[in-house]
Amino acid sequence: MPINFGIIGGDARQLYLAKSLEEDGHSVYLSCLENAKGAEVFPKVPLKKISTLCETVILPLPVIKGEGLLNAPFSAHAIKADDEFAKMLEGCTVLAGMTSKLPQTEVWQKTSPIDYYSREELISGNAVLTAEAAIAMAIQEYPGALNGASCLVTGFGRIGKSLCDMLHSLYAKVDCAARKKLDFMMIQNMGCQPVQYQAISRRYDIIFNTVPSEVLGEKQLASQDKDTIIIELASLPGGVCLETAQKAGIRVIDGQSLPGRVSPKTSGEYIKQTVYNILEE
Amino acid sequence: MPINFGIIGGDARQLYLAKSLEEDGHSVYLSCLENAKGAEVFPKVPLKKISTLCETVILPLPVIKGEGLLNAPFSAHAIKADDEFAKMLEGCTVLAGMTSKLPQTEVWQKTSPIDYYSREELISGNAVLTAEAAIAMAIQEYPGALNGASCLVTGFGRIGKSLCDMLHSLYAKVDCAARKKLDFMMIQNMGCQPVQYQAISRRYDIIFNTVPSEVLGEKQLASQDKDTIIIELASLPGGVCLETAQKAGIRVIDGQSLPGRVSPKTSGEYIKQTVYNILEE
Amino acid sequence: MPINFGIIGGDARQLYLAKSLEEDGHSVYLSCLENAKGAEVFPKVPLKKISTLCETVILPLPVIKGEGLLNAPFSAHAIKADDEFAKMLEGCTVLAGMTSKLPQTEVWQKTSPIDYYSREELISGNAVLTAEAAIAMAIQEYPGALNGASCLVTGFGRIGKSLCDMLHSLYAKVDCAARKKLDFMMIQNMGCQPVQYQAISRRYDIIFNTVPSEVLGEKQLASQDKDTIIIELASLPGGVCLETAQKAGIRVIDGQSLPGRVSPKTSGEYIKQTVYNILEE
Amino acid sequence: MPINFGIIGGDARQLYLAKSLEEDGHSVYLSCLENAKGAEVFPKVPLKKISTLCETVILPLPVIKGEGLLNAPFSAHAIKADDEFAKMLEGCTVLAGMTSKLPQTEVWQKTSPIDYYSREELISGNAVLTAEAAIAMAIQEYPGALNGASCLVTGFGRIGKSLCDMLHSLYAKVDCAARKKLDFMMIQNMGCQPVQYQAISRRYDIIFNTVPSEVLGEKQLASQDKDTIIIELASLPGGVCLETAQKAGIRVIDGQSLPGRVSPKTSGEYIKQTVYNILEE
Repeated sequence: MPINFGIIGGDARQLYLAKSLEEDGHSVYLSCLENAKGAEVFPKVPLKKISTLCETVILPLPVIKGEGLLNAPFSAHAIKADDEFAKMLEGCTVLAGMTSKLPQTEVWQKTSPIDYYSREELISGNAVLTAEAAIAMAIQEYPGALNGASCLVTGFGRIGKSLCDMLHSLYAKVDCAARKKLDFMMIQNMGCQPVQYQAISRRYDIIFNTVPSEVLGEKQLASQDKDTIIIELASLPGGVCLETAQKAGIRVIDGQSLPGRVSPKTSGEYIKQTVYNILEE
Repeated sequence: MPINFGIIGGDARQLYLAKSLEEDGHSVYLSCLENAKGAEVFPKVPLKKISTLCETVILPLPVIKGEGLLNAPFSAHAIKADDEFAKMLEGCTVLAGMTSKLPQTEVWQKTSPIDYYSREELISGNAVLTAEAAIAMAIQEYPGALNGASCLVTGFGRIGKSLCDMLHSLYAKVDCAARKKLDFMMIQNMGCQPVQYQAISRRYDIIFNTVPSEVLGEKQLASQDKDTIIIELASLPGGVCLETAQKAGIRVIDGQSLPGRVSPKTSGEYIKQTVYNILEE
Repeated sequence: MPINFGIIGGDARQLYLAKSLEEDGHSVYLSCLENAKGAEVFPKVPLKKISTLCETVILPLPVIKGEGLLNAPFSAHAIKADDEFAKMLEGCTVLAGMTSKLPQTEVWQKTSPIDYYSREELISGNAVLTAEAAIAMAIQEYPGALNGASCLVTGFGRIGKSLCDMLHSLYAKVDCAARKKLDFMMIQNMGCQPVQYQAISRRYDIIFNTVPSEVLGEKQLASQDKDTIIIELASLPGGVCLETAQKAGIRVIDGQSLPGRVSPKTSGEYIKQTVYNILEE
Repeated sequence: MPINFGIIGGDARQLYLAKSLEEDGHSVYLSCLENAKGAEVFPKVPLKKISTLCETVILPLPVIKGEGLLNAPFSAHAIKADDEFAKMLEGCTVLAGMTSKLPQTEVWQKTSPIDYYSREELISGNAVLTAEAAIAMAIQEYPGALNGASCLVTGFGRIGKSLCDMLHSLYAKVDCAARKKLDFMMIQNMGCQPVQYQAISRRYDIIFNTVPSEVLGEKQLASQDKDTIIIELASLPGGVCLETAQKAGIRVIDGQSLPGRVSPKTSGEYIKQTVYNILEE
């Protein structure tokens, strides 16, 4: 059954989301995306009319950027995600990424925003996209081959697991740092070498950090040198002591938010699939 | 037994070659590499003295660039690879990449240049580097995920084989175009779908061309669209009818000479290993 | 710090467990394993003395077999796992596999048996062993090649995931049946095709069942034929309607308890590692 | 265009070959296969009539077994592959496996037998079948897991390459012994460790021999022990010094002719594909 979707703000992913929804036979209205490439083929609606036209509204991922502003890099104007904004969504099913960043007001709570970014399937899909993009970065930034390179992956969550799998398949030599004993056996079973964070002491060609707290401090960086590259995948503050890295001349490459930057098309399609699953439940 | 190597001209690979030779205990003298980053730690010698100092001289890959000039992008001056140049190498073992491009003069023939680029091990190593770098390009340029993307590899030589292997490992869906019936079974045995060049008729997300003659003409490009990207890996003239591609709005991305551009370190090390094998034989 | 371990009953895995513990410098005493090959090199102790000699006692996996009997196929006598038996373990740390099958008496409860089989690391290790052994069975029993064979994996738990991974790596074509929408994206990201149980309608060369309740009933088996083989990996009653399978002439191969049957050495080592982790906590 | 094929003698592969030819719409007549399971559905013809009925005759692989006898284990009688036999094939296109074993008589030469076993595509397909079956053997015979097992592959021909690929994918640790320096780089690029035959000195859990001359002699076996298993894949005399192995208590498992034993269906289909390719050329 076709649905009228309103997509408000967001980055390139939301455009691909719009296209993909339309290909499935739904109607899509855009708002706050005037300057996005490809937006011209969709009907634009003023925010005020959204709730009249659309049953379901999809807000950006993350929904908020900066101080209470809607994350809308392609909007001609800055949009406050305040109560007035929330009121315009009344009566719609509201979906947003990282709803915890929304104002905790009564009006917003009445919209009952559903967080699509907290969903298992999107997290898992994004992990694959992140790992892929991180590997592309590693190949391009490291002057040697990935094949045969000695790599360290810190963290054995979804991104870490995906990295271990892909790196092994591409014939890198992989150590993976984890905390839980339970993970050690699984790391070994993936053809990789488990290592405790405190025991990181070998030199690596490439380090992929997935842990959002300092796991690569003075001790761990002591064995690295200026030919080591670190790809920082974790959200701020990241896992690398930047001061130590800088002193040692170790390059730390920004690998944050890769799915949106490198694979907006599939990111958008994953959001769509997640939205469908939410609406079906 | 330590050898005195002279490295004359070439790109970043030759610097890594120099470093790697030195780490193995050899002496390395550089010439025509004045402006290369990292060259300052090696003794520079004027061309005239090379044959006095060095037993073995390694010329660039490819040895010639443009009209009879030595391929020496980091040299302060253009160097003619003429008889005068050849004479200065007298008495040395001379190794060069693509010797067929050297002048066919008597003086050059007396230097008996050995082509390290024609060696199986270097070709095979470069194929891996090319495939890796092409995959990184695909991940970064294609807005979707490589995972699940529908890919076409044209050609089932070394680069084609390596691409099929890596793409399958990264969960892409891979068709591979080949001419020989004999290759069809091998392609299938790698988890890929073989296709005749004349039968290419599906739309692909990503096409990797490895064939240096036009295999992607009007017929084959007819089923592609402006979201298809083609990564051209073959040497000139390449395998894509550029005119047709341009009309159809299909992006053709330059993927030529990837080992030197993306993995100069390992490229240099592969050259070293090849040189060792040649000298031992 | 060396520990005195008592190993009572069990199958070949316990012998490898004993060897591996001893190689790590511990002392190992055996009981109820008289007829096991390789048992002769370990000191045998009567059950009564176990608690005097050993700090830690490891009971079999599963601990109970049949009506209240200790699972002790290599014992000269049947051993009742009754209160009298439990009393002899007093004062020891008691570890056992599947403690839920032990008598729920006060005496047994006083021994506080710790279930090593419920541990994540052992379950995860056993999943890998099961998948490996199932693949070996498939290669040997199916008269075609696994490479290119059309396979169905039912269930996307640990064993299902491991099977999908290995089958894809060996170039089979893999469908995986799952219930949760959430799993569908992950299955696709592993290069496999997700399918709902109700929608199983293609013919397969090989089916691996990992679900311990009937998921392969009349409907699903209707599209299979006498050349299809099913490898039943789930514990009783399994996932296959045996009556329907028999009528259709479909072979159902017993793949239960594979880790103990095919890889007792690694199974024993996994138990050891799990025991270490338990004792450390 | 349908062809009348005559299949004379051979093992289970020829039955699958017959089935597969028939499924493609050809007519198939059998001879000297009376006792083969599944043969009853095909028309049987006496040898004398073969040339009247069939344009193309497919002899077994290998065509000869024992002293000048046709390889026909399912025949009710022993068949001499003599001139009289050859005369009955007059006028047919004759295909056979290992034609070098046929009598070198004038009559046989007049039949111009084409060796389908010397064809690249069949050799390459059989290598995959051999590697698969060898891996199944290893999983079942080695009491530990293949995952993490230390393996040695001797030889880097087609079977060796296929083994390296599959073993790495299944997370074994793989050394590969080769003679040519040229192979060393390729072995490394497949995530394996190259080793010279003379330098084999580590202990391995599992050894796969693919070399048909003694490469595992006293020196190489000295570091193995009674828990090492060797899977002998090479044709006689094989690569293992059996006397040394026996003294050391090392198990040598017969892995000869695996495609026919383990995967007769796909073997037969590969023969069919090869026959088609031959007839088309």
